[in-house]
Amino acid sequence: MKIKPLGQRVLVKRIEPAEQKSEGGIFLPDTAKEKPQEATVLALGNGKNDEGEIIEFSVKEGDKVLISKYGGTEVKIDGEECLIISEGDILGVIEG
Amino acid sequence: MKIKPLGQRVLVKRIEPAEQKSEGGIFLPDTAKEKPQEATVLALGNGKNDEGEIIEFSVKEGDKVLISKYGGTEVKIDGEECLIISEGDILGVIEG
Amino acid sequence: MKIKPLGQRVLVKRIEPAEQKSEGGIFLPDTAKEKPQEATVLALGNGKNDEGEIIEFSVKEGDKVLISKYGGTEVKIDGEECLIISEGDILGVIEG
Amino acid sequence: MKIKPLGQRVLVKRIEPAEQKSEGGIFLPDTAKEKPQEATVLALGNGKNDEGEIIEFSVKEGDKVLISKYGGTEVKIDGEECLIISEGDILGVIEG
Amino acid sequence: MKIKPLGQRVLVKRIEPAEQKSEGGIFLPDTAKEKPQEATVLALGNGKNDEGEIIEFSVKEGDKVLISKYGGTEVKIDGEECLIISEGDILGVIEG
Amino acid sequence: MKIKPLGQRVLVKRIEPAEQKSEGGIFLPDTAKEKPQEATVLALGNGKNDEGEIIEFSVKEGDKVLISKYGGTEVKIDGEECLIISEGDILGVIEG
Amino acid sequence: MKIKPLGQRVLVKRIEPAEQKSEGGIFLPDTAKEKPQEATVLALGNGKNDEGEIIEFSVKEGDKVLISKYGGTEVKIDGEECLIISEGDILGVIEG
Repeated sequence: MKIKPLGQRVLVKRIEPAEQKSEGGIFLPDTAKEKPQEATVLALGNGKNDEGEIIEFSVKEGDKVLISKYGGTEVKIDGEECLIISEGDILGVIEG
Repeated sequence: MKIKPLGQRVLVKRIEPAEQKSEGGIFLPDTAKEKPQEATVLALGNGKNDEGEIIEFSVKEGDKVLISKYGGTEVKIDGEECLIISEGDILGVIEG
Repeated sequence: MKIKPLGQRVLVKRIEPAEQKSEGGIFLPDTAKEKPQEATVLALGNGKNDEGEIIEFSVKEGDKVLISKYGGTEVKIDGEECLIISEGDILGVIEG
Repeated sequence: MKIKPLGQRVLVKRIEPAEQKSEGGIFLPDTAKEKPQEATVLALGNGKNDEGEIIEFSVKEGDKVLISKYGGTEVKIDGEECLIISEGDILGVIEG
Repeated sequence: MKIKPLGQRVLVKRIEPAEQKSEGGIFLPDTAKEKPQEATVLALGNGKNDEGEIIEFSVKEGDKVLISKYGGTEVKIDGEECLIISEGDILGVIEG
Repeated sequence: MKIKPLGQRVLVKRIEPAEQKSEGGIFLPDTAKEKPQEATVLALGNGKNDEGEIIEFSVKEGDKVLISKYGGTEVKIDGEECLIISEGDILGVIEG
Repeated sequence: MKIKPLGQRVLVKRIEPAEQKSEGGIFLPDTAKEKPQEATVLALGNGKNDEGEIIEFSVKEGDKVLISKYGGTEVKIDGEECLIISEGDILGVIEG
């Protein structure tokens, strides 16, 4: 299954950080970890805005990006948790 | 009965997922299941926006789409539960 | 008494559905029924928007339409319950 | 005392309906009656909008209009209760 | 001290109504009276809007106006209670 | 330390009124006094608005102004309490 | 790791004030101190606004700025607490 986002949205997948321990060295199960804010861009929308004009994206497929913690809608694609977010919820591109 | 949506709305019908069981294998009756987010586009509106201009749609009849969980107004057409939603509440098009 | 709606409003009259019974076959008195969502367009406004421009309507007198459940203001015209609603609260036109 | 409304406001005076009785035939004192929604236009504003442009009115002095129940500001002019409302709160013109 | 209001604001001074008694004839001390809605325009702003354009005022110095009860900011000028209000909070001009 | 405000903001310093006593003649310590609304303009912003255009200010350095009581952000500059406020929160210029 | 902010955002790092003691001379641990409002600009966004136009920034890399206390999103870059904020949340540039 493939998703083509509409409008100024992009499809991203969060990058899981390396295994996380609490400060006391205790392993944290999944629900206690803070959700990662890094994500990879999987697909761009068609860029059309509310007036029907095309706005060029500032990110491209494969970019690693920082996303705001609570934006977007979670979608399951082939069993994998992805996120469709508005480009405006991407804070910046990670460059190295 | 046929519905021609007005404005930038589209008429969609949710795609029921295959039979769903809870993790313990118990069959879940209809009211306990999460509402599906996949839908088929049945009809497009006339595309007119608030200023009276026509904005072309990014979806077409027959498209499978992902819709946000809480958008739209439910309407019963010939006994079938459909949904009239604004195109802006379609997150993306499912392509395969 | 005749009403000429102002602006982008239309005057509609709800279509009462055929007599409604509860699932157990008990006749429901008027206050327990859900308000119908089908309506007939009785009169169009002058179409003027906030900037004083005329926006053409997408419906015409006599059209059967679907209206959102809570929009509009109820008015009694010659003893009959009518509704003045903004055209934007008409979800679609019923075509058959 | 005369009032010239400013902007896209109009001065109206509610039309008192004929004496009202409850269904059981009991006379209702003033405070228990529902406020009437019919009004007569007494004066038009200068029509200037926020950008300083003149927007022509769709009503004229003497028109009988339907007004929304809660809009407007009540003013007492020579002891009579009047109402200054935005033209946008006039739902329609009564034509007969 | 003189105040030149900025933007589309005007400086007004409320007109105290003649001595007010309650219906039973009891004199009402100042805090129990309803604030008057009539005011005199003392000074106009420079008329500049948010885009830096000058919007001409519809009132002039000396005009008696009706103002909405709760708009504006109270300022004390040479010991007198005045009010700086946006012109949009002036409902109308009193003409006689 | 010097501050150059950004955008349509200005830097002001409140003018402390002459020593204030309560009506009973008791000296009021600092925290019980009402914050003064008069201020002196110390510096103007660059005047750039959200679209990147320059909007000329209606005040200049040294002007005494009336400011709304709750606008602005307090900043300490060289130990002195100043205020960065949007020009829109300046109600008027004090002229004498 | 380097971050290129998107849109009209900038990446800043707060400047820690010199060691702070309470008035009684007691050293305040980190969580009891008020968050500093001074910051250094580390990187500018691409300046693109919602319409896809480029708006020039009023700050540049290396500028010391005053930022509003609660704006922005905290991000950890190479273990250091930084902040991605909208340029509109920068109150002013510190000039000496």
